Amino acid sequence: MQQRTHQITVNTHGRKLYDITPEIIAWAKASGLRTGLITLFIQHTSASLLINENYDHDVLVDMEAFFNRLIPDGDPLFIHTVEGPDDMPAHVRTALTQTQLSIPLLEGRAALGQWQGVFLYEHRHVPGKRKVIVHMIGE
Amino acid sequence: MQQRTHQITVNTHGRKLYDITPEIIAWAKASGLRTGLITLFIQHTSASLLINENYDHDVLVDMEAFFNRLIPDGDPLFIHTVEGPDDMPAHVRTALTQTQLSIPLLEGRAALGQWQGVFLYEHRHVPGKRKVIVHMIGE
Amino acid sequence: MQQRTHQITVNTHGRKLYDITPEIIAWAKASGLRTGLITLFIQHTSASLLINENYDHDVLVDMEAFFNRLIPDGDPLFIHTVEGPDDMPAHVRTALTQTQLSIPLLEGRAALGQWQGVFLYEHRHVPGKRKVIVHMIGE
Repeated sequence: MQQRTHQITVNTHGRKLYDITPEIIAWAKASGLRTGLITLFIQHTSASLLINENYDHDVLVDMEAFFNRLIPDGDPLFIHTVEGPDDMPAHVRTALTQTQLSIPLLEGRAALGQWQGVFLYEHRHVPGKRKVIVHMIGE
Repeated sequence: MQQRTHQITVNTHGRKLYDITPEIIAWAKASGLRTGLITLFIQHTSASLLINENYDHDVLVDMEAFFNRLIPDGDPLFIHTVEGPDDMPAHVRTALTQTQLSIPLLEGRAALGQWQGVFLYEHRHVPGKRKVIVHMIGE
Repeated sequence: MQQRTHQITVNTHGRKLYDITPEIIAWAKASGLRTGLITLFIQHTSASLLINENYDHDVLVDMEAFFNRLIPDGDPLFIHTVEGPDDMPAHVRTALTQTQLSIPLLEGRAALGQWQGVFLYEHRHVPGKRKVIVHMIGE
């Protein structure tokens, strides 16, 4: 049994879903392992991970519209406003989505379904440098 | 250290929580491994995984009532309507629940709590064939 | 490759986020392993796990305010009321957060980001004894 580790860095420019699927697929393939478990872990609390449909871009637009309606920037409910009107909403959005995702490796490939993409969901409007730790164990 | 892989297929007939606990427990037991990590990964973006109370059926009814109120079918917020009024709500429900779940294996058993069941949550009304990849590593 | 298992027990006294980061960091360090995968699994359906900002306490206050607004105790939507007005909301809160979290182990340390804390989120008002199974595989 072997392990591999990697880091994906995404330079974000505003609130959006950033597709990191190609990098994950390529890294998994290059590992040379056949069967295993890939784990993604984002080291932030105002950006998150999400597996979502990667075919129709409208899905990403609607996903954002939903979260924006559920947790509007500047929501008067929040007292943690020192980092800006989008910071506490970003923490809530992160709580409602994923900080970590694991994907099995089967026959040398990340076992994503046909329509699944892996996204880094940036919830802040300011540019950021987001780090995702990638771990794999397998053989 | 060894690995096992498996696939669970659920033929769904409408929006509902489908209990897959017995199959997971039986598969884990049959593996012959004693200590490890079981990972479930659903290969879809309009059906998801959820660990929930498996005792009182009313909990499942209420869970569905909650999601239905939060993200009603045909919500005018959404522009991705080409696959039907329940498709975009299904993607949002998936985002808010789980695409992947890992459960430790202890003393040869999936370490679920007494009241925990593992459910496949079908979010579409149309019948579907849903696939869950199961991976285990341990010894 | 080796495995370690552990159990964290939290005696809760009401609905709140309980910081379990120090115990996880200490246990990971004491394992003697350098690279691996740590998995936390909570064996309950009315308490959950959440990675969140651990710096400003107001973030925890606001997180609770958000969930309380989204799923108020005694919500007339719910029929599962036999265990009290906060029980079904607790199940929904659990569904919307995490039952399981995995964190890579890198250079002998749990690879949490600078502002990330790991919390057990108790959703019931009554005192409880909550168990989190901890599993690690690595070398």
